[in-house]
Amino acid sequence: MKKSVAIVGATGYTGAELIKILLNHPNFEIKTLFSSKGGEKIEEIYPAFKGVFEKEIKKAEIAEITAHDLVFLAVPHKTAMDFVIELMNEDIKIVDFSADYRLIQENYEEFYVKHTDSKNLSKAVYGLPEYFREDIKTTKLLANPGCYPTATLLGLLPFKKYIEGAVFVDAKSGVSGAGKKLNETTQYVTINENMFAYNPIHHRHSIEIKEKSGLDVNFVPHLLPITRGMMISIYANLKEDIDPLEILKEKYKNEPFIRIKDKPVDIKSVAGTNFCDIFAMKNGNSLFVNTAIDNLLRGASTQAVVNANIMMGYKETTGIPNIAYIP
Amino acid sequence: MKKSVAIVGATGYTGAELIKILLNHPNFEIKTLFSSKGGEKIEEIYPAFKGVFEKEIKKAEIAEITAHDLVFLAVPHKTAMDFVIELMNEDIKIVDFSADYRLIQENYEEFYVKHTDSKNLSKAVYGLPEYFREDIKTTKLLANPGCYPTATLLGLLPFKKYIEGAVFVDAKSGVSGAGKKLNETTQYVTINENMFAYNPIHHRHSIEIKEKSGLDVNFVPHLLPITRGMMISIYANLKEDIDPLEILKEKYKNEPFIRIKDKPVDIKSVAGTNFCDIFAMKNGNSLFVNTAIDNLLRGASTQAVVNANIMMGYKETTGIPNIAYIP
Amino acid sequence: MKKSVAIVGATGYTGAELIKILLNHPNFEIKTLFSSKGGEKIEEIYPAFKGVFEKEIKKAEIAEITAHDLVFLAVPHKTAMDFVIELMNEDIKIVDFSADYRLIQENYEEFYVKHTDSKNLSKAVYGLPEYFREDIKTTKLLANPGCYPTATLLGLLPFKKYIEGAVFVDAKSGVSGAGKKLNETTQYVTINENMFAYNPIHHRHSIEIKEKSGLDVNFVPHLLPITRGMMISIYANLKEDIDPLEILKEKYKNEPFIRIKDKPVDIKSVAGTNFCDIFAMKNGNSLFVNTAIDNLLRGASTQAVVNANIMMGYKETTGIPNIAYIP
Amino acid sequence: MKKSVAIVGATGYTGAELIKILLNHPNFEIKTLFSSKGGEKIEEIYPAFKGVFEKEIKKAEIAEITAHDLVFLAVPHKTAMDFVIELMNEDIKIVDFSADYRLIQENYEEFYVKHTDSKNLSKAVYGLPEYFREDIKTTKLLANPGCYPTATLLGLLPFKKYIEGAVFVDAKSGVSGAGKKLNETTQYVTINENMFAYNPIHHRHSIEIKEKSGLDVNFVPHLLPITRGMMISIYANLKEDIDPLEILKEKYKNEPFIRIKDKPVDIKSVAGTNFCDIFAMKNGNSLFVNTAIDNLLRGASTQAVVNANIMMGYKETTGIPNIAYIP
Repeated sequence: MKKSVAIVGATGYTGAELIKILLNHPNFEIKTLFSSKGGEKIEEIYPAFKGVFEKEIKKAEIAEITAHDLVFLAVPHKTAMDFVIELMNEDIKIVDFSADYRLIQENYEEFYVKHTDSKNLSKAVYGLPEYFREDIKTTKLLANPGCYPTATLLGLLPFKKYIEGAVFVDAKSGVSGAGKKLNETTQYVTINENMFAYNPIHHRHSIEIKEKSGLDVNFVPHLLPITRGMMISIYANLKEDIDPLEILKEKYKNEPFIRIKDKPVDIKSVAGTNFCDIFAMKNGNSLFVNTAIDNLLRGASTQAVVNANIMMGYKETTGIPNIAYIP
Repeated sequence: MKKSVAIVGATGYTGAELIKILLNHPNFEIKTLFSSKGGEKIEEIYPAFKGVFEKEIKKAEIAEITAHDLVFLAVPHKTAMDFVIELMNEDIKIVDFSADYRLIQENYEEFYVKHTDSKNLSKAVYGLPEYFREDIKTTKLLANPGCYPTATLLGLLPFKKYIEGAVFVDAKSGVSGAGKKLNETTQYVTINENMFAYNPIHHRHSIEIKEKSGLDVNFVPHLLPITRGMMISIYANLKEDIDPLEILKEKYKNEPFIRIKDKPVDIKSVAGTNFCDIFAMKNGNSLFVNTAIDNLLRGASTQAVVNANIMMGYKETTGIPNIAYIP
Repeated sequence: MKKSVAIVGATGYTGAELIKILLNHPNFEIKTLFSSKGGEKIEEIYPAFKGVFEKEIKKAEIAEITAHDLVFLAVPHKTAMDFVIELMNEDIKIVDFSADYRLIQENYEEFYVKHTDSKNLSKAVYGLPEYFREDIKTTKLLANPGCYPTATLLGLLPFKKYIEGAVFVDAKSGVSGAGKKLNETTQYVTINENMFAYNPIHHRHSIEIKEKSGLDVNFVPHLLPITRGMMISIYANLKEDIDPLEILKEKYKNEPFIRIKDKPVDIKSVAGTNFCDIFAMKNGNSLFVNTAIDNLLRGASTQAVVNANIMMGYKETTGIPNIAYIP
Repeated sequence: MKKSVAIVGATGYTGAELIKILLNHPNFEIKTLFSSKGGEKIEEIYPAFKGVFEKEIKKAEIAEITAHDLVFLAVPHKTAMDFVIELMNEDIKIVDFSADYRLIQENYEEFYVKHTDSKNLSKAVYGLPEYFREDIKTTKLLANPGCYPTATLLGLLPFKKYIEGAVFVDAKSGVSGAGKKLNETTQYVTINENMFAYNPIHHRHSIEIKEKSGLDVNFVPHLLPITRGMMISIYANLKEDIDPLEILKEKYKNEPFIRIKDKPVDIKSVAGTNFCDIFAMKNGNSLFVNTAIDNLLRGASTQAVVNANIMMGYKETTGIPNIAYIP
């Protein structure tokens, strides 16, 4: 029998992606959609769902959420915490898209707000399957990684012990990464035929990368004039003479969603999939690592479903799209 | 047991789309890929297939093609004819993407070349399922419609008997419609931040629309700065007082791949699917019909698989994507 | 001595374009920038002006505006009327970008709001120089045409007497045409890789086209995924056997800002200029006319300066950009 | 009297930009256009010039070129050398867009071909006005810098003495940077909604940056889905405690074409101009420098005209566009 699923925050881009994946998933069934205000229909917000998946969105209430086997919380930080603190007492598994359970309390509070659920913070598992698969299997509370940290850590962690000094991460994201809320930065006229960095060095995702890598990371995100996809270029100094591609191939040899490339990666080859494509090379002691993911999928919704697969004991690849939106 | 499928012309965009669909189809199995020269690998031409579907492409030979249950010919006109004339003597079903078997001989020869297989021309069925479903069920040779004619005819045919005088079709296509061959028109710098009509009135697809509709059609295609998708606006004069939306709803009420919209259509809601979305309204005697399809899918590859489903006796919707590439 | 110019509504896109043109104009000097709230700096709103043209924007007050020789009102309809009613008593010439003085009162009130300055309405001249040049020379109040009407009328009017029955206008505009105000339609993710019609038939600009042409026009505007530029395709039935290109060439033979093309027009060849490029052909009695303009320039700001040139007795082409933003 | 100018290589993008600038330049007059084959008309290659600047393009012959005061060679490397070797004996000033006279012979031959004009190599001046203004004043042969080196060196050189260890340059260019020649990389479908690095570390422009900066530079260029513009992010380690913005402001305080920004730069604010916008910040010892230019203008054609202005004794800013292509 299929597991019943609730999506809280169904109206955002990652909520819509989650619906798309789960509709084709053999083991999960979307039973209820929730949003903060409720009363909308998913096919009115995304007309593409018309005739495919039409459903009312309810106002999110704990009592209704607990009637499911699994809940995806695709809501902002702080809001997530308010749900989790209640849901942890109930018989339901939780995949949280927000930053609320990704960081140690000190780091979280420096970049976000006061943490009001420190008890559960220590119970959460960081959902990067390639590195925390065993812990994910048994957790009740999964902290789904951010898009920038996912794309950066998958390229950076294999080289952690060979790097000395500062690491520079030049990150580029499609506009969907900024979410559905109206703002001037994401207006067509602002970003079309343009590109710019924002929050250099001090972006919130930098602490997530630093904490998980233990490295001295300088993170500079940029907005790209594309809708979806993300590219990361990592620059660092090596303290050992290594073969970067060999290290990647060895590290990820059994991973179904990592592809090691022998030339620079591109965004379109991963758009629409859960793949993280990685390339690396060196020049003397200088290391260049280059990764690409779909920011909404591997950076959010497909990674969440992969984590849910692991939490439920299903095969990790079940129902996960692997065919890109090319050409 | 799955039916074995050959794709001739696997390296073009419609060939790549065909592969993507068939990989998720429960009843078909891609056994062999062919191209005119052979010797390539599909994952080298489209790196997105790396780790997902890796396969050598063979040089197309009749003897090898006939070893399959079904062949998709995704090749240019004239080339298709050369294959069909041989394959019609063999035990194989044929779905032809070219114009070679779509038109009566006189019309074909006016816009293309001399027809060298008139014997089989009369046996071919035009693969617009909403209008020729019964004939498709029993044919051995299916002429898959062009993208412009598909999007135009689905909007135009319901109104055929109510129209008088000339019909104007303002058509807009994404750049993938021009195919993979290098040319100046499809260079990024040419078409980005630009738009233009090409071959107005005299485009080859106009004869296909005229022949199938029996109407006096003026067809003006434009190139749009998007990769995939197509929008058609049809303008005509009505000779009767009708309710355009009601006529559409009645005509297509049981059709799984037509959605009648109560406001103008958009391209992204159909991109990645086999849907044709249609809207219509009138102003006095003036009729405006507005349709959108994915030019590579409903305009080629998913429509081809829908036709193959019908030819093989499968459910029409089997394995056909219906979730759009939004956001 | 240069004429002193005030711009009211300097923060919008057409205000910014006006500044760009006037900075290179030999006879006009921008003395004051105004906006509804004031207190901003133009180089903060448009960082591109940093180091080039830095100026505070004042809150618009009649008393300050009247200290100039000429004022451009780049403000919304209704707001314009409130300024004009006062300014008409003063010694200042007025170029109004809004719809307030373009239409006869009855038409205006049907599509906009109640007109509160009917006295001056009859004094305004419609600023399409190719058709109203003589009246423009002597007017104190110039109603600058809308972008859609400009591009449509320049293609349509030469054929007015040869057309019978309904006219269909398929219009496509870049996103800047929707202005700088945040809305979901103009978000990058909404319009990128997309296209759609909006307000078909009933768009406000349709009445301007109808009134000025006297024809039965069905106007369908679409939004295009480009920043600037506009393309119009006009479809109509002819009652006489004419040579469309010859009629255009004859009609516009002395016009400095009209170029007759012998193949379909493109947007990039006019972007950045005041040109209107026009192509036309027929098929039997069916007429196809195809025009392109820069929506912010010929559709607003350069046309306004051309009109100002004429009103001031300067050469019409003075200071008007004619070199496109290619490649 | 205006100086007479010849453009050799008028059909490429930088040739077209050169024409656009010179048409509005008070001291230069384009007397002759040349290309390798000749026989075309500039208004046929770029229809935007129709009615604005129509001129036949001649086959390039030394004897005809020498009849001008100044020649711009907008031709590929090696071809440039063949012209220069002859022209240096004549009474004409030369601005060369190619790499032929930018590098010391050893570096040139490692990345390009054998140098056949070493005699004149030592006479050439590298045309980065901010650093070589005095030499430019008196040279007969000007080597106009590459686009990537221009944007990189202007950001990097002010920090040269404060940097230790390897420098990482993450560079992003619009598609026009790849030139007008057809290739698969610059097809719309390839680069739209995509981004990728190419020739990482080993790109030809890396040697130009290394030679001129004397630093250990790792240069990684990427192609962006925009037509024009370039952004550079430089990452390095500092050996001293400096205030990066102060150093920039001091270094460039009198420069008319450098703007120091207090937040990250964007491409659109420089597109259409000769500006190089620069921002810098540090994080401990980690330095981040961020620059933007128009690749076709500051990266080629306007920088060439600035250099020509200096060579001819004109004011450096004469005829140089400084108003960006916003919005």
